[in-house]
Amino acid sequence: MILDGRELSKKINSEIKQKIEGYCEKHQDSKPGLGVIIVGDRKDSLVYVNMKRKKCEEVGIESKVIQLSANSSTENILGIVKIFNSDPTVHGILVQLPLPRHVNEETVLSAVDIDKDVDGFHASNMGNLAMERRTPLFTPCTPLGCLRLIDEYKIPLQGKNVVVIGKSNIVGLPISLMMMKRNATVTVCNVHTEGLQEITQRADIIVSACGQARMVRGDWVKEGVVVIDIGINHIQDPEHPDKPEKKKMVGDIHYEEVSEKASHITPVPGGVGPMTVAMLMENTYRAFIRQERN
Amino acid sequence: MILDGRELSKKINSEIKQKIEGYCEKHQDSKPGLGVIIVGDRKDSLVYVNMKRKKCEEVGIESKVIQLSANSSTENILGIVKIFNSDPTVHGILVQLPLPRHVNEETVLSAVDIDKDVDGFHASNMGNLAMERRTPLFTPCTPLGCLRLIDEYKIPLQGKNVVVIGKSNIVGLPISLMMMKRNATVTVCNVHTEGLQEITQRADIIVSACGQARMVRGDWVKEGVVVIDIGINHIQDPEHPDKPEKKKMVGDIHYEEVSEKASHITPVPGGVGPMTVAMLMENTYRAFIRQERN
Repeated sequence: MILDGRELSKKINSEIKQKIEGYCEKHQDSKPGLGVIIVGDRKDSLVYVNMKRKKCEEVGIESKVIQLSANSSTENILGIVKIFNSDPTVHGILVQLPLPRHVNEETVLSAVDIDKDVDGFHASNMGNLAMERRTPLFTPCTPLGCLRLIDEYKIPLQGKNVVVIGKSNIVGLPISLMMMKRNATVTVCNVHTEGLQEITQRADIIVSACGQARMVRGDWVKEGVVVIDIGINHIQDPEHPDKPEKKKMVGDIHYEEVSEKASHITPVPGGVGPMTVAMLMENTYRAFIRQERN
Repeated sequence: MILDGRELSKKINSEIKQKIEGYCEKHQDSKPGLGVIIVGDRKDSLVYVNMKRKKCEEVGIESKVIQLSANSSTENILGIVKIFNSDPTVHGILVQLPLPRHVNEETVLSAVDIDKDVDGFHASNMGNLAMERRTPLFTPCTPLGCLRLIDEYKIPLQGKNVVVIGKSNIVGLPISLMMMKRNATVTVCNVHTEGLQEITQRADIIVSACGQARMVRGDWVKEGVVVIDIGINHIQDPEHPDKPEKKKMVGDIHYEEVSEKASHITPVPGGVGPMTVAMLMENTYRAFIRQERN
């Protein structure tokens, strides 16, 4: 069974759109706003920012995208963060990652007003995500989207063996923390893990966010596994082996092989990707409502 | 081989003592101070606080212990935290956990000035402990003590299968995060975990912090395993089965059985316990020096 992120995200986005319309009818001067900062011109980042910008427009969120050159200093980026922090028409702030290597990412992300931290990457949001009996103001969009998909299909987590491949700050780590909080038995793997194939073979649920195209093969998984594929990799299109310019987007999972055995699987594209954008819309809407009430 | 926390902690404590003496000779008016808040009169908490108080005296840290009655309100506890926050002779603040159920633990711990958070339980310290390329100001004492012991005996972590039993905010969670950061493959188990015995059998390193006396038996582990036992449980002393008042302190690990197979093991008592106290001394000393320099 396909975990259809495209379908679920449509439903969520249209609900947010309705809520925003309803709110804005009653409060004529108010409208949710998202401030986006992108540094440099990485092609993938530009694509993502563009998708987010379009979705904002669709659901009724005003977006302000500020693009800085790749050689911008940490101070200059901080300056934009501060402008967004004090701009009452900006309710959520998104710093598109990764930042260029010379930029101090921690300094930039920590400067985002915690009430506008719709990406959930502020240290105190991450700490509250990690700790039992704590709730962060905002949860990172990609892992939140995965959980929402899992819950939509009523896949139980408590007591299940969950294997997470990758431990990045933006995906692998927060999804591991969320799975732990839901009482799954979580194994977090990384590039140094030995015997990864045997570990995935024991998993009830596999979450992959390692950026290795089609790494997880059919014989890496057991019958009935649930597979969440967060990888986005661009490979030579196998249908056009003679045209190097023809690329195909694939995940970390070898979809054709693994879908034969999986009970549930996310496709790439159309799985986690649209859920990430929908969760950003939801987080921005929530930030807006919180700030309106204060 | 026994991982001797008593011995290592002595070494660390004596180094801290020397450093404090050296500093205080040069700066006559300065002395590190620790403020401790204990709410209620749980016997175990009183024992721990007393141990910490004595160790402070031994190494040259001034301690102020404030004991509040078990029925104290969150507001009253907050009041003491604020007094310690603004007291320039208090460089570290420790709120002895657990707090009584009616107290909002999050509110209390979040109120501790992050520069004095020597227990490392502030959300932003925990978030920075979790995230790659981030460093918390302070790391929780018990997991820090475990890591220090592991490093002292030159036990490698990268690529090793580490199984953590328990996911509490104060021990299981932070040690899991620290092991992840050191590139171990970490499996975090909880009370809902199925097949725990098979999971521990595959572990290169077992860290237990679940509070179940002698739960991990000899046949739960493989030959050559490294075992860190954080459990502190009081059971009827088997040598005095007829005297219910005679108690014996044991860990989560069945020491006699598991030590037959382990390459390294921490005893209870004398393993992690004294390391926790030593790390509190070290964190308090570090807080003192940081505040002196600002």
